[in-house]
Amino acid sequence: MTTQTIIGTAQEVRQQIRSNKWRGVTSGVAPGYVQANLAILPKDLAFDFLLFCQRNPKPCPILEVIEPGNIEPILTAPGADIRTDASGYRVYENGQLTAEVDTIEEYWRDDLVSFLLGCSFSFETAMVEAGIPLRHQELGNNVGMFITNIQTTPAGVFSGPMVVSMRPVKREQVVRAVQVTSRFPATHGAPVHIGSPEDIGIKDISQPDFGDPVEIKDDEEPVFWACGVTPQAVALNCKPPLMITHTPGRMFITDGKDADYAVL
Amino acid sequence: MTTQTIIGTAQEVRQQIRSNKWRGVTSGVAPGYVQANLAILPKDLAFDFLLFCQRNPKPCPILEVIEPGNIEPILTAPGADIRTDASGYRVYENGQLTAEVDTIEEYWRDDLVSFLLGCSFSFETAMVEAGIPLRHQELGNNVGMFITNIQTTPAGVFSGPMVVSMRPVKREQVVRAVQVTSRFPATHGAPVHIGSPEDIGIKDISQPDFGDPVEIKDDEEPVFWACGVTPQAVALNCKPPLMITHTPGRMFITDGKDADYAVL
Repeated sequence: MTTQTIIGTAQEVRQQIRSNKWRGVTSGVAPGYVQANLAILPKDLAFDFLLFCQRNPKPCPILEVIEPGNIEPILTAPGADIRTDASGYRVYENGQLTAEVDTIEEYWRDDLVSFLLGCSFSFETAMVEAGIPLRHQELGNNVGMFITNIQTTPAGVFSGPMVVSMRPVKREQVVRAVQVTSRFPATHGAPVHIGSPEDIGIKDISQPDFGDPVEIKDDEEPVFWACGVTPQAVALNCKPPLMITHTPGRMFITDGKDADYAVL
Repeated sequence: MTTQTIIGTAQEVRQQIRSNKWRGVTSGVAPGYVQANLAILPKDLAFDFLLFCQRNPKPCPILEVIEPGNIEPILTAPGADIRTDASGYRVYENGQLTAEVDTIEEYWRDDLVSFLLGCSFSFETAMVEAGIPLRHQELGNNVGMFITNIQTTPAGVFSGPMVVSMRPVKREQVVRAVQVTSRFPATHGAPVHIGSPEDIGIKDISQPDFGDPVEIKDDEEPVFWACGVTPQAVALNCKPPLMITHTPGRMFITDGKDADYAVL
């Protein structure tokens, strides 16, 4: 098995992953295909979690929900197996990380419901194509993520603050950044905040809660987008007996194309 | 109680309804406020129905889902009571209409989940404001609705064909009609089909399955939108032990303003 970046269609990459020939960070892999955050929960929590996602579409944009016990994402990746085709998995029991594994067949149960949620890779591609550079990408770093004082809309047992990602944008490009990302509501969409980090409860912009710090230059504004870490954080808050996610950065790659999810 | 049309804010109209001072067809009532289709189902069907709506956002645009047993639409109409504040209710048992009532307090149960779904009144207002006349409205008729051969995406126990509404639009205004309604995804959004009724399985455009026939003139195209009758029809298909809906045309009026639900 190699961890070098590979290029191919979504189907080809998933086949490489399933056959254990490749497994790694999926940024830049299968370019143009929509990648998904994964959250797998027992059915007795599934209605509340689906409702939470429905009420909080910016941090939790639903690409697909697979019915209890089913393993095939029939809408976004027909033929795939949700237990083997993500690049890496994390298993949480009672809110604690208990395993990091290549496949989750041994954890599978008939009552598990799989949620595929949009990831920011799609709108980042659109920003770069629009000539808006992404500093964290250029430096080969992870984006900086922050816990805010913006409360999500609770649903059933799920509630908690929104996590955002921050990207510095030149003042003259801020309007364009709003326009470009607004076209991708299925992958977090328009920013939730522009400027003053303090306004959304971020005390020190140089100290992200997750990911890497990113410098903000004098001619730039910090621009904040709702982040896919939110649903995971919120779900783990209530310590479900079992929850399975992808390993950060190692997403499930769907057959959907970025362009198919763009509005207007 | 009078059935004359009344004008007021959403709150004022709901108060009139709750106190039994007014009850009638809500078209044109509380102008500018978003009106909702109502579907109330037992919790054991709620996950499947929520997933069905999520997979079929055009016929089933979710405005709010109220958690099991709760009666207050805290997001779209805080202070309201879903059991008394719609203008009329229908009770279905095992798929059969068994009662048409003013309030549903006597049917209420702790396991009932209430779905508020967008209704076409919002985008019709936008069309009229954009100078696109609506023949059925001018004639004081109901819109014509048709069962199509467009299959919805099934979810759990729910599946069935999409029901559409048809409005004739002058050829020179068809583009504008697409643009204007695209701004309201929360209330059915863009058309699902333009032109040839046969293409979507409609054999006789002069014989709607629901509502009233509407003439199509030589300089007009029939334009079809996904219709809020779809989720009701699909839900009743599987004969749930109990399902409560609003009476057609007598909607639940939310505090949301049309403009708040517009995109771009």
